[in-house]
Amino acid sequence: MGVYEELMAFQRDTEALAQVAGRLSWDQETMMPRGAADQRSDERAAMEAVLHQRRTDPRVGDWLAAIAEDELDAVARAQLRHIRRSHERAVRVPERLASEIARLVSRSHVIWAESRADDDFAGFAPVLKEVIALRQEEGAALAAGGDVYDALLEDYEPGAKAADLEAMFGALRPRLVALREAVLAKPQPQGLSGTFDEGGQMKLARLLAKTFGYDMKRGRVDKAVHPFSSGSGDDVRITTRTMPLEPFNCFYSTIHEVGHGCYEQNIDTQYRLTPLGAGVSMGVHESQSRIYENQLGRSRAFTGWLYRQMRDTFGNFGITDEDGFYAAVNQVRNGYIRTEADELQYNLHVLLRFDLERALISGDLLVDDLEAAWNDRFKADFGFAVDKPSDGVLQDVHWSAGLFGYFPTYSMGNVYAGCLYKALRDAVTDLDAQLAQGDTSAATGWLKENLQQYGGLYTPREVIEKASGRAPTEAPLLDYLEEKFSALYGL
Amino acid sequence: MGVYEELMAFQRDTEALAQVAGRLSWDQETMMPRGAADQRSDERAAMEAVLHQRRTDPRVGDWLAAIAEDELDAVARAQLRHIRRSHERAVRVPERLASEIARLVSRSHVIWAESRADDDFAGFAPVLKEVIALRQEEGAALAAGGDVYDALLEDYEPGAKAADLEAMFGALRPRLVALREAVLAKPQPQGLSGTFDEGGQMKLARLLAKTFGYDMKRGRVDKAVHPFSSGSGDDVRITTRTMPLEPFNCFYSTIHEVGHGCYEQNIDTQYRLTPLGAGVSMGVHESQSRIYENQLGRSRAFTGWLYRQMRDTFGNFGITDEDGFYAAVNQVRNGYIRTEADELQYNLHVLLRFDLERALISGDLLVDDLEAAWNDRFKADFGFAVDKPSDGVLQDVHWSAGLFGYFPTYSMGNVYAGCLYKALRDAVTDLDAQLAQGDTSAATGWLKENLQQYGGLYTPREVIEKASGRAPTEAPLLDYLEEKFSALYGL
Repeated sequence: MGVYEELMAFQRDTEALAQVAGRLSWDQETMMPRGAADQRSDERAAMEAVLHQRRTDPRVGDWLAAIAEDELDAVARAQLRHIRRSHERAVRVPERLASEIARLVSRSHVIWAESRADDDFAGFAPVLKEVIALRQEEGAALAAGGDVYDALLEDYEPGAKAADLEAMFGALRPRLVALREAVLAKPQPQGLSGTFDEGGQMKLARLLAKTFGYDMKRGRVDKAVHPFSSGSGDDVRITTRTMPLEPFNCFYSTIHEVGHGCYEQNIDTQYRLTPLGAGVSMGVHESQSRIYENQLGRSRAFTGWLYRQMRDTFGNFGITDEDGFYAAVNQVRNGYIRTEADELQYNLHVLLRFDLERALISGDLLVDDLEAAWNDRFKADFGFAVDKPSDGVLQDVHWSAGLFGYFPTYSMGNVYAGCLYKALRDAVTDLDAQLAQGDTSAATGWLKENLQQYGGLYTPREVIEKASGRAPTEAPLLDYLEEKFSALYGL
Repeated sequence: MGVYEELMAFQRDTEALAQVAGRLSWDQETMMPRGAADQRSDERAAMEAVLHQRRTDPRVGDWLAAIAEDELDAVARAQLRHIRRSHERAVRVPERLASEIARLVSRSHVIWAESRADDDFAGFAPVLKEVIALRQEEGAALAAGGDVYDALLEDYEPGAKAADLEAMFGALRPRLVALREAVLAKPQPQGLSGTFDEGGQMKLARLLAKTFGYDMKRGRVDKAVHPFSSGSGDDVRITTRTMPLEPFNCFYSTIHEVGHGCYEQNIDTQYRLTPLGAGVSMGVHESQSRIYENQLGRSRAFTGWLYRQMRDTFGNFGITDEDGFYAAVNQVRNGYIRTEADELQYNLHVLLRFDLERALISGDLLVDDLEAAWNDRFKADFGFAVDKPSDGVLQDVHWSAGLFGYFPTYSMGNVYAGCLYKALRDAVTDLDAQLAQGDTSAATGWLKENLQQYGGLYTPREVIEKASGRAPTEAPLLDYLEEKFSALYGL
């Protein structure tokens, strides 16, 4: 066995163990008895310690140093790029710090949940300060003199730089604020009436999963409080939820997670249990979930098909034609909550978090001033005031879990989806006619062929450029949103 | 931190990882998408490699050597007994052999399933020869000059010796064969009529779980093709199954797995994620599942209560009084299949396998002669001929999985249950009156108090002796069976 093969055999086990750790999280959210929480913390910590040890194993450094990279093909070099990056980052963080962070975020998550239930930001602030301090320390160790926030961002979106995002998001924000304001000055479309039974919602959710190409032989759909997808290769699971009055929540959560799940399922099988065998970044992942959910799933063409399915399943629900249904699906409403936001307003929620978390990490914003900063920014962008912390600064789990640098990947995903959709429309000329029949195969097939199959072979930016034929910019997303919502609201 | 504490911290992570590996098996049987089988093999192999590495870690040997054992208390010494045993056994087996066995049994399991479906023992024989050869090699490495079969048995029943079992089983066999023959010469009681819907069966299964003290906050009940229990501490899961015509299969499988599950749940919480925090052996485990299922669950008193529950749930099912129901629950019928056998005949199935597998491991019986040997022995003990391999030598998964030395622990469990039940009846004088009300708390409380709480603190034999007040013998089980079935069948 050559040195490269030795390294890859070791790495293959690491990847398999990472899958096991991921499945443990899935189990925790779907199946775990509630009395098992403490024990599960110990189990997860033990798995994390094993993974950390493997990522920092000195043999990995030795193997990497011993490999004659220029004799390898492009696939092998891409594997090494991932392994080197993961190893170098892991060894930069002292084990003491890594385990302190793990222990702290486990505690801070509990405190956050209590504080959110009590609508008490002051109860969360002290532990948030600790989380930020440790992540600053970790970021500094990772940055090795470079930008600390960029070093954290690198975990979720390799190669991305906050300064570039700032420019991109800076171009998005004013046009979205203006579009939002114009749309909300217009009359609202009619909404759904009646209740929608769980059985019918889950039946349609499974139909939607199938319709978008999710392979149930290599996955499963369960219910969870917060929908998510989990796993790579041949075991990619998604979850959804049902609420009697909000079937769209179930259906579009499902399509969103199916987008994530299909990306994983559609990666070239030769990459299974290797660093190339998973989605390349959070931003590219989100581009897939978003294009499935929004550009395809919320299109006039596809909602026409969905309307007919809902009529078949639920009978009359107060909307009597496809155009009215399309308007209901795409209704723009005032709201506090990011995860419930429509396509138009969603990025405004993210941009707010990006600016605040950068300032928290740089030290320009103190935790004691965070709630006021949130509320001011919210009022500025959304035009009305936050009523309580659980609708504002306490709404998201991310910061309590130490996830700084994660939020911007949501909007990067939307920007990427805009670029991809433009190219997809050029490539699949009868797209609307197909979607109107509930046939997504040309669209999802194009995404598989041009992006999903590659897994981690290219960098995030490379794969978007390759698929969309352009360097990613916010322009296609803005054009698409302005066109769609202008038409919908008669601007 | 002292040396003992260092060792225990390391061991705690090992135990946590073993729980994770166990949950992966649970997932495989209950939740895993069917297309994920190959990937799951890789994931399990990676987990096994991690566990093997930890069990053979030289630091464990160093810690064990450095600890001044006589300064420790009884609990700590018991922990060391388990750790030393596990470490010494693990280091005796070369890593090459351990991984060869893991790969082979994964393959042989598939071949066994195909051969069983085709009723073709010859298709299974070649790989069974390979399995036996590797297990012989492993047994020889473990035995270090001692008896090879005993060395394998030690994995499931520490301290047990095949020669002792031979004597015990030798005393069981003739009296069971004679009792069986006498019972089957008598008229059969009336059976159930009608079908029993899945919802009603699962509802009663959950009621039974609760009735026997299974804690649903620290466990869950799912369906699986073959019922099993899984996990220790605060996450102990059981499975059951339903068949429309056979509600007793569901109910008594459930009580059986509840017996296993309660043993794990009732271990002193201070032992959680330590070597003492799990059932001490397969035999002692089976004593708990069997006493719950048979001595308690199939008693005249408890079946009176169960009869009323079944009437409430299913209405009329052709049996109109408690005595008739008791007879139906305990019906003795000719049958080929161990897992479907009644209390009287079950051990005859096990004794057959024990004798054959000992001969296979010693080399006295060749795989090419195994099918004939099975069929001859079956005819001798059960009085009729095996009709096809899937009803005979191919019926059980164990040998295909390399599990030699496992079968006898089933009958040891029954023998232990006989001893425990005798002591339990002496201790809980109004047991029948309580069971007749569906109240198992005194009985299960006695088992928790006298046996289950100790986990691995005592050796298997010690804990049975301590709880039952006697060295274990087959006599109480035989007396119990002869008395019960003589009364039932009017012998």
